[in-house]
Amino acid sequence: MSGRTILASTIAKLYTEEITAKVKQLQKVPKLVGFLGNDDPAAKMYAKWTGKTCESLGFHYELREVEKEDLEEAIIGANKDAAVNGIMVYFPVFNNGQDQYLQQVVSRNKDVEGLNHKYIQNMYHNVRYLDIEEAKAAGTEPQIKSILPCTPLAIVKILEYLKVYNSLLPYGNRLYGKNVVIVNRSEVVGRPLAALLANDGATVYSVDIKNTQIFTRGEGIKMTRHHSVDTDISLEEAAKNADVIITGVPSANYKFPTEYVKSGAVCINFSSEKNFDPSVKEKASLYVPSIGKVTIMMLLRNLLRLIDNQINIEEKKNATS
Amino acid sequence: MSGRTILASTIAKLYTEEITAKVKQLQKVPKLVGFLGNDDPAAKMYAKWTGKTCESLGFHYELREVEKEDLEEAIIGANKDAAVNGIMVYFPVFNNGQDQYLQQVVSRNKDVEGLNHKYIQNMYHNVRYLDIEEAKAAGTEPQIKSILPCTPLAIVKILEYLKVYNSLLPYGNRLYGKNVVIVNRSEVVGRPLAALLANDGATVYSVDIKNTQIFTRGEGIKMTRHHSVDTDISLEEAAKNADVIITGVPSANYKFPTEYVKSGAVCINFSSEKNFDPSVKEKASLYVPSIGKVTIMMLLRNLLRLIDNQINIEEKKNATS
Repeated sequence: MSGRTILASTIAKLYTEEITAKVKQLQKVPKLVGFLGNDDPAAKMYAKWTGKTCESLGFHYELREVEKEDLEEAIIGANKDAAVNGIMVYFPVFNNGQDQYLQQVVSRNKDVEGLNHKYIQNMYHNVRYLDIEEAKAAGTEPQIKSILPCTPLAIVKILEYLKVYNSLLPYGNRLYGKNVVIVNRSEVVGRPLAALLANDGATVYSVDIKNTQIFTRGEGIKMTRHHSVDTDISLEEAAKNADVIITGVPSANYKFPTEYVKSGAVCINFSSEKNFDPSVKEKASLYVPSIGKVTIMMLLRNLLRLIDNQINIEEKKNATS
Repeated sequence: MSGRTILASTIAKLYTEEITAKVKQLQKVPKLVGFLGNDDPAAKMYAKWTGKTCESLGFHYELREVEKEDLEEAIIGANKDAAVNGIMVYFPVFNNGQDQYLQQVVSRNKDVEGLNHKYIQNMYHNVRYLDIEEAKAAGTEPQIKSILPCTPLAIVKILEYLKVYNSLLPYGNRLYGKNVVIVNRSEVVGRPLAALLANDGATVYSVDIKNTQIFTRGEGIKMTRHHSVDTDISLEEAAKNADVIITGVPSANYKFPTEYVKSGAVCINFSSEKNFDPSVKEKASLYVPSIGKVTIMMLLRNLLRLIDNQINIEEKKNATS
């Protein structure tokens, strides 16, 4: 076979050194709290694995198992607790709109997953800092960084590693000319990912159960940020020209049709289920079967960014009081 | 028949005088902008009706019809436009999580529907102002009011009108002893409503397609705010003791079983469909078949509150600059 399978662990390793070095420079060991509000054994296993990875990189990790009815108060407690630097919640808990409500209860300053509305809105608009206006008014540089959602960020980093991002092109346009298919348009991964890749110059076909949308900066990527519209293009048609196919269907039964994959395409699966059939290796040039180990690196990088922000905010407070 | 049907228009009338008087005191005519991002003729009709009611009470109303792909930018434009005092969006637009995202794009200071996360979180926690901490630090009274979601607020006002709230009891406990069934647990109406009524002392059975939850401040309403837990109680059992039954099922086929209604109960329907069979009148003491006309009064009251807030925020800005 002429293609290669690339494991997430290979890419994740590149970040361990950077992260452990940064943790050692900090005055105290950073603390991440994970909240588990359901009794799904798979979620518990995943939470334990997060914990092990954290500890191995020098972080403190504390898993707090709470009844779902007590979750909101538990999150608010952690928001107020100065000993806690980062918070994550293992969803689904209620598996309805209440989960989105709970996600927004997590303090913006401790949201390692980057799912606070302000972060997501900044991401769509390609805004990198939270204090742009204050900095402008004060004549200084902005310092409070906006946080990117972990999973989409992990996929961007994977695409950089796989050289899909072309470093000869100017920063911000490095996916110019690339066609991407993403099968998933959730608010947590699929839609932000489509926006991120389109903002970097790609033409993205975003597919969900209802329809397909094209995310693009237009002919010649003349627009400064992406726009999206519905399209009638079939999955087969979109895939035929796709340089990259990314899947995230949370179903054991779903398989992306190997016959749709363009010879030499890059295939990435971020679902916990295997969305590609093993036969995809006969078509794909590079195949990444799962991404979890890169995602957790992004989570910890976000945590380090948040700690920078927390120190910055504290310094500003002390300077004015 | 011994019961009475109470029309929303009767209750709404009580607010027209208060609202028009307040509008006349303002230095300029308040402006509400409604965004329509779908081509549902029913939504368009509803939007036009909102407009007529607004104009009849002295407000300016502008309906902006935009493509759904352009809605976010259009909302951001209205957020920045000082001539716009209030913004509402006719949902569903995408009919998925993107709608919740768009709702949060509406500026908190212009959110007449009271659906901003901060407002909803304050409502669950019975917090009435946005500037409590700043006021405490400055040794002054808080002035920036939190906004309650329109539809739950309308139902509270209807229950006050129907004397379900007992004014002999202390404010905040006026539903003590009342059992309420609510068939709907959406994040926009059913869940906040259950919380509001339980916070006021009621025992609320909140029913949705998946399960039933009890919202209560506990035996003797000793807790200061509600707690909710799952329960196995059947709808029939819950309804048998219910003083109030409130329905909000968005389906033409759903009818609340009249035989479950306790003789003399108060029945309120907030769905646009008729969730009670006409036979309910033989059981209910008071029956409110729809609530839209009260809801719009609450929307306009919220707009007036927001204008108060906007003036307050402006004054503070001028005082410090």
